[in-house]
Amino acid sequence: MESSGQSSSATVRAAILVIGDEILSGRTKDKNIGYIAEFLTGVGIDVKEVRVVPDEEDRIIEALDALRGRYDYVFTTGGIGPTHDDITADAVAKAFGVAIDVDPRAVAVMTAHYGGSEHLTPARLRMARIPAGAELVDNPVSAAPGFMLGNVVVMAGVPHIMQRMLDNAALKLRTGSVTLSDSVSPGPGIGEGMIAEPLAAIAAGHPEVSIGSYPSFGPAGFQTQLVIRGKDAAKVAAAKADIEAMVTGLRR
Amino acid sequence: MESSGQSSSATVRAAILVIGDEILSGRTKDKNIGYIAEFLTGVGIDVKEVRVVPDEEDRIIEALDALRGRYDYVFTTGGIGPTHDDITADAVAKAFGVAIDVDPRAVAVMTAHYGGSEHLTPARLRMARIPAGAELVDNPVSAAPGFMLGNVVVMAGVPHIMQRMLDNAALKLRTGSVTLSDSVSPGPGIGEGMIAEPLAAIAAGHPEVSIGSYPSFGPAGFQTQLVIRGKDAAKVAAAKADIEAMVTGLRR
Repeated sequence: MESSGQSSSATVRAAILVIGDEILSGRTKDKNIGYIAEFLTGVGIDVKEVRVVPDEEDRIIEALDALRGRYDYVFTTGGIGPTHDDITADAVAKAFGVAIDVDPRAVAVMTAHYGGSEHLTPARLRMARIPAGAELVDNPVSAAPGFMLGNVVVMAGVPHIMQRMLDNAALKLRTGSVTLSDSVSPGPGIGEGMIAEPLAAIAAGHPEVSIGSYPSFGPAGFQTQLVIRGKDAAKVAAAKADIEAMVTGLRR
Repeated sequence: MESSGQSSSATVRAAILVIGDEILSGRTKDKNIGYIAEFLTGVGIDVKEVRVVPDEEDRIIEALDALRGRYDYVFTTGGIGPTHDDITADAVAKAFGVAIDVDPRAVAVMTAHYGGSEHLTPARLRMARIPAGAELVDNPVSAAPGFMLGNVVVMAGVPHIMQRMLDNAALKLRTGSVTLSDSVSPGPGIGEGMIAEPLAAIAAGHPEVSIGSYPSFGPAGFQTQLVIRGKDAAKVAAAKADIEAMVTGLRR
């Protein structure tokens, strides 16, 4: 990757678009949404929407068009392999109204990876099809690249490959201020029903942070985790202090 | 649940709407999408889209309106607890243009669960707010019910509770013919690059089934699983036989 990342204090917003019938059938359990969301949050890009659509060109294009106009970036996973159901690259080209063809840059890295052009079967060459005007996103695992066209980053669906592509794509992205988060765990004795009213008052008193309560069910019964999120560390800390004082009061 | 399920041979299509900032931040990894998708596929309801949106009323309503008009059912998870960030029930009421208030049926089950009405704090009563006209969906874990309004099924976000609500909601749903699936695993020696061309020919010859190739990366390197999906068992079997013959030929 040639260019280095840029930062700004602005908010940068993104969507994730997962492409694949196998996710919608439940046969494959998605592992990419949570990974990408956590990664982007960590570098200062806020994920505001996720969609999962089938391997159907019109549905992919519809989602791409809805999301790329609304968010700073769209990150797609899936559908860039060599088989007939891999139609993401063509759908992206069609959404942007650009041509798509076998890309000499992709052929070069794949030829090196496979040990000679005689190994570039038509199926493998299908993975070298890149829309006109796209930048490649390196794939150090299996060579066949992802790409970035406009504000859309197109990555593989296999988590191991997607994660390396995301590392490389991140160098090209504009990032905003990181959303910080901190949390308070009241413990098993204190449930949401006890906390809800004082927590709502604290949330109202700290309008510049977002406070969430996330219950879970474990061996000790219900517990909840109170999460404070915001862009300003002092404001997150102030809200946390109020929550801790409230929880301490309830424990007495 | 009073009514029993109905079946038909038609296709029944659904969307899943996950509501929650904590999923979008990556802090909580969603476990509901894959579970619901697999469950619905098994009972003959095809999931055709998933969206994840933040805890923001306008975004929830926008997604509800887009999805409930397009699919036979919408299954939501998250945002029906007692805290200030639990706004799903109100958003559903607003999307449907109906009133919402504390529901005596919900109060009854919650009073029994908590051991008396004196334990129904304002926060807990918030969980008894149900839009007018909705059917309750029983929650055998922690009493506070989900509900079904029109074609929208509203469930908790905690997986353990959501799964029981889904069991109960399923009794009320119209189901279609089940999409069957079968698979062929060519093994470590045979990658997508070798399979793609003959597989595309087989797919073209079996237009009434859907054939996907799902690569994964494991200890033995890349493998792929070839999955055949369709509503007709004989057609799935015929496509599988052609794929097995193709793979056997490649192994020689």
